[in-house]
Amino acid sequence: MIPDLQNKISAAVEKFSTSLANTPPELYEPIRYMLSLGGKRIRPLFVLTACKLYKEETEKALSSALAVELFHNFTLVHDDIMDNAPIRRGQPTVHQKWNNNVAILSGDVMMVKAIQLISDSKLEPQILINVLSTFNEMAIGVCEGQQLDLNYEQSYKISIPQYLKMIELKTAVLLAASLKIGGLIGGASDEDAKHLYEFGKNIGIAFQLQDDLLDVYGEEGKFGKIKGGDIIANKKTFLLIKAREMAMTSPLLSEELEQWIGIKTTNDRDSNEKIEAVTRIYDFVNIKKVTEGEILFFHQKAITSLEKVNADSDKKNNLLNLTEKLLSRES
Amino acid sequence: MIPDLQNKISAAVEKFSTSLANTPPELYEPIRYMLSLGGKRIRPLFVLTACKLYKEETEKALSSALAVELFHNFTLVHDDIMDNAPIRRGQPTVHQKWNNNVAILSGDVMMVKAIQLISDSKLEPQILINVLSTFNEMAIGVCEGQQLDLNYEQSYKISIPQYLKMIELKTAVLLAASLKIGGLIGGASDEDAKHLYEFGKNIGIAFQLQDDLLDVYGEEGKFGKIKGGDIIANKKTFLLIKAREMAMTSPLLSEELEQWIGIKTTNDRDSNEKIEAVTRIYDFVNIKKVTEGEILFFHQKAITSLEKVNADSDKKNNLLNLTEKLLSRES
Repeated sequence: MIPDLQNKISAAVEKFSTSLANTPPELYEPIRYMLSLGGKRIRPLFVLTACKLYKEETEKALSSALAVELFHNFTLVHDDIMDNAPIRRGQPTVHQKWNNNVAILSGDVMMVKAIQLISDSKLEPQILINVLSTFNEMAIGVCEGQQLDLNYEQSYKISIPQYLKMIELKTAVLLAASLKIGGLIGGASDEDAKHLYEFGKNIGIAFQLQDDLLDVYGEEGKFGKIKGGDIIANKKTFLLIKAREMAMTSPLLSEELEQWIGIKTTNDRDSNEKIEAVTRIYDFVNIKKVTEGEILFFHQKAITSLEKVNADSDKKNNLLNLTEKLLSRES
Repeated sequence: MIPDLQNKISAAVEKFSTSLANTPPELYEPIRYMLSLGGKRIRPLFVLTACKLYKEETEKALSSALAVELFHNFTLVHDDIMDNAPIRRGQPTVHQKWNNNVAILSGDVMMVKAIQLISDSKLEPQILINVLSTFNEMAIGVCEGQQLDLNYEQSYKISIPQYLKMIELKTAVLLAASLKIGGLIGGASDEDAKHLYEFGKNIGIAFQLQDDLLDVYGEEGKFGKIKGGDIIANKKTFLLIKAREMAMTSPLLSEELEQWIGIKTTNDRDSNEKIEAVTRIYDFVNIKKVTEGEILFFHQKAITSLEKVNADSDKKNNLLNLTEKLLSRES
């Protein structure tokens, strides 16, 4: 089933890229460029797979599948400007390859094209209205998430609830909306659509937490990231925020952690030392267990929602397997 | 009629601003800020007035009216980043008051909110689909226009057809779409909607050309801009592009014009000298007459389209009067 859907998506992406205007090239080349960089196309796969819970035929969901992929790419292009990121999927980011203005404008066009794909997709009126409403709300949530992320980078202390809300908005609601949109197009009831959304949201949060965990406790090199990269970058992950909270019971431990956070390393030896030291503190407060517990919590919440979905249980299992396979260490 | 509609729009803007979320403030404060800076609200007035051609009651068009105003403000926020503009409507621009990231993201949210206003406005399905399609196409056109404008700033020579296409996309299609959307919501036929669009497009081009003309031949101080400001900034207006073309018949004249264009003035005396010299060349090639002819051409085209609109001729005259009143020296 999956390779089949993946082929459909690839073909649709290809067709869309070809159908784009050529002029002005500064507007359309970056869109083709971003789409050519690939990725796992998780979000469009979510749309089609959720649709398939209700209907064998997914043709009607293809435009919306493309729309969420395009929206995702729009967020990458604009986020990369804000984060000053030079590399995306191993290639120069749009603002790096062209310039900031091109990245702002071509991003804007991607956003409009995403909406256009949905609006023009000849869905039944009531479904169209629901899909658009889901999409718009999601889009606003994602922008809020990005703004919170930017804010939290600057702020000294953020709490676990704040962090969870941020990753929910920045990452999880797009997965949630993709599933809900696919379901709606397939003919899901409002109830089912809500459960699919909750499933996607909680599984999205679980996997972001797992991503945080794997940075420190994952196998070296396996995930295309340097182990401990988040520690070096002082990234406010679940592990760091939680460890800071837990270390507060011991002034000495807390002080040690804060000192390490204060150090900006400039060479490999210092970096490794920092990773080892922070990991020691993480081990001491048993952060791995704590994080795994949190992952389990959201994972379980997700499954509970999926169970409530009124669809064939084999198909639901397929969806769950797919989700877990696709989302493992997504970058 | 107009003050009444203007009051409705002001009230709707006010209500919308109040209804916006507060968190994160970096996302929503700029939207409230932009909307509080006012402006003539030309585009929403176009929506309502076009609707009124067909229906006394304009309530149903109010969300779409707000949507085009919000979209317009989105383009201002993003354009101001790209143009590095410090001031908008006499106040600091969003990227100046906050920063580029806030301007990018809050602009993105404005764009989504605009679409959301339309999607949620409970229009009849077929009308909704037509309005969305008009809106999306317009939005893409406006982005293309901005990209062309950026490109032409960098390019040495651009032609009159290139310039006309650019102002059509950057400025005129939003006016055109506002009229078309209002008409569609009022119940205009597809034919009428097309004519309203053409009316708005051509009147938009005419007024942009008039704006170019008034910079040089308008009454000093009357329009809130410094006379000759475009000349000082070497802005590629209709006058400059056309004068360059016309001057080519005389190598000496052409050389003189190019020399003046090459000069970057740094004080008032030099600036005034440049304005006088370029205006002399403009006078010599009779640019005022030529530009007036072009304005008349587009104005006439607009009126021809309006005549074809199947609505009460008093109401059409009202629309024409309103258009001309509102658009005179819009900034």
